[in-house]
Amino acid sequence: MTKEFLVDQIRKKQSFLCIGLDVDLNKIPEHLLKLEDPIFEFNKAIIDATHQFCVAYKPNTAFYEAYGLKGWQALEKTIDYLNKNYPEIFTIADAKRGDIGNTSRMYAKAFFEDLGFDSVTVAPYMGKDSVEPFLEFKDKHTILLALTSNEGAFDFQTKTVDHTELYKKVLITSKSWGNSQNLMYVVGATKAEYLTDIRKLIPDNFLLVPGIGAQGGSLEEVCKYGMTQNVGLLINSSRGIIYASSAEDYAEKAAEQASKLQQSMTVILRNQPKCK
Amino acid sequence: MTKEFLVDQIRKKQSFLCIGLDVDLNKIPEHLLKLEDPIFEFNKAIIDATHQFCVAYKPNTAFYEAYGLKGWQALEKTIDYLNKNYPEIFTIADAKRGDIGNTSRMYAKAFFEDLGFDSVTVAPYMGKDSVEPFLEFKDKHTILLALTSNEGAFDFQTKTVDHTELYKKVLITSKSWGNSQNLMYVVGATKAEYLTDIRKLIPDNFLLVPGIGAQGGSLEEVCKYGMTQNVGLLINSSRGIIYASSAEDYAEKAAEQASKLQQSMTVILRNQPKCK
Repeated sequence: MTKEFLVDQIRKKQSFLCIGLDVDLNKIPEHLLKLEDPIFEFNKAIIDATHQFCVAYKPNTAFYEAYGLKGWQALEKTIDYLNKNYPEIFTIADAKRGDIGNTSRMYAKAFFEDLGFDSVTVAPYMGKDSVEPFLEFKDKHTILLALTSNEGAFDFQTKTVDHTELYKKVLITSKSWGNSQNLMYVVGATKAEYLTDIRKLIPDNFLLVPGIGAQGGSLEEVCKYGMTQNVGLLINSSRGIIYASSAEDYAEKAAEQASKLQQSMTVILRNQPKCK
Repeated sequence: MTKEFLVDQIRKKQSFLCIGLDVDLNKIPEHLLKLEDPIFEFNKAIIDATHQFCVAYKPNTAFYEAYGLKGWQALEKTIDYLNKNYPEIFTIADAKRGDIGNTSRMYAKAFFEDLGFDSVTVAPYMGKDSVEPFLEFKDKHTILLALTSNEGAFDFQTKTVDHTELYKKVLITSKSWGNSQNLMYVVGATKAEYLTDIRKLIPDNFLLVPGIGAQGGSLEEVCKYGMTQNVGLLINSSRGIIYASSAEDYAEKAAEQASKLQQSMTVILRNQPKCK
């Protein structure tokens, strides 16, 4: 998927919501556990009920790997279901991979070619040759970790390197590896006040923003400081949507929560003259 | 497996060799491709032929994920085979994972509990709460990336942070998260000259050292600067051993290469009075 197509979808749906499919068998409705593939059945129902309110889905691979072969199969079925039934949806493998060049190439192949995701999250610690193999795929997107939403972000990411913070050094250095067509960044919603500075460094790249809801980030703050002419934001919500109810009405309740967020986004887009 | 057991194995086998099981279907002998599970058959033959020369095996997950469900199954079969037939072998999932706390916990569960690895490599960029869930498992080992063997290591890892290099900051900060019983570090063999300084910061932790052979690192240099009283080193070789031959004699040739490295290690251990 191209960046332009994604921006068109955002304008059409008046939403820049991404729904995180972090499926934990301890949290999904009990009646699903009797089915052959409860993870996929849960995802399918959530996707069918919420797709009109969002532009992206983001399964985090940890939640699938934790269930071994069955988990990996559920991940494959989920991305296949999305690609077949909702090809207009932007798909993100939240995998946070990164390795030496020839190994990163295997990861890129796995997520882009075999599974068919539009994008994958990548960790920057190993530098240029660990990221470039992901950038070589046409119409695919590399989403590099910059400033994450967790407390641990302050251990290294905000430390001063070469007279700037490490996460800014990551932005500055990595800018030349790709461009705003194929390179996005993760910036946590819990650190919205950093977004003004971040936008000075990367005015055009999309940001994937986790941390709204359960982690305490504010949608309004993120948009105030992080929005661009092309919107430039994908706001992720996982637990707040998919676990809105643990009863049989889980998909319906998830849709209600997704719809609420989509409505807030519509208001924000209307009030942002540059985004109309 | 405890650290003491690993050290005992090293002394018994006079080897601190780790063999990287990075299986690429384009590189393995053609006759294996006709079999139902060529990846596992290749690993099984390599393991049977080389286990007496090494103390550890390290499959890199990228090479398995690249083959989807079949790849993941081959990884499961490989670790099961190792745990059943060679329980004295230290096993490393080279996965370079790391995510926010509740998500890292899922990865830790996947690699330690479900797959049954002794250790997993973890990326430090997301800080303490992304690493701690791995450290909570008894007799399991977290191998944190410090200074990697690739060129990209110079993009961020060697940059100055708080008056020291980022990789040293990672060592200093992470030391308090675990201890030398459950925390190891990745330090590339291509940067052996850095080991003197590294050993001042972490005198007792084991180091997993990739980059010998195909990547150009020197075994002697690494041992000269990195060895401790408890040896403290696991030297990895992947391509140089497992692809020593692409003909039907691949396992035999792999054993020859592993044996050569083991013999060099025996000489080094004999000449290091502190390691006798």
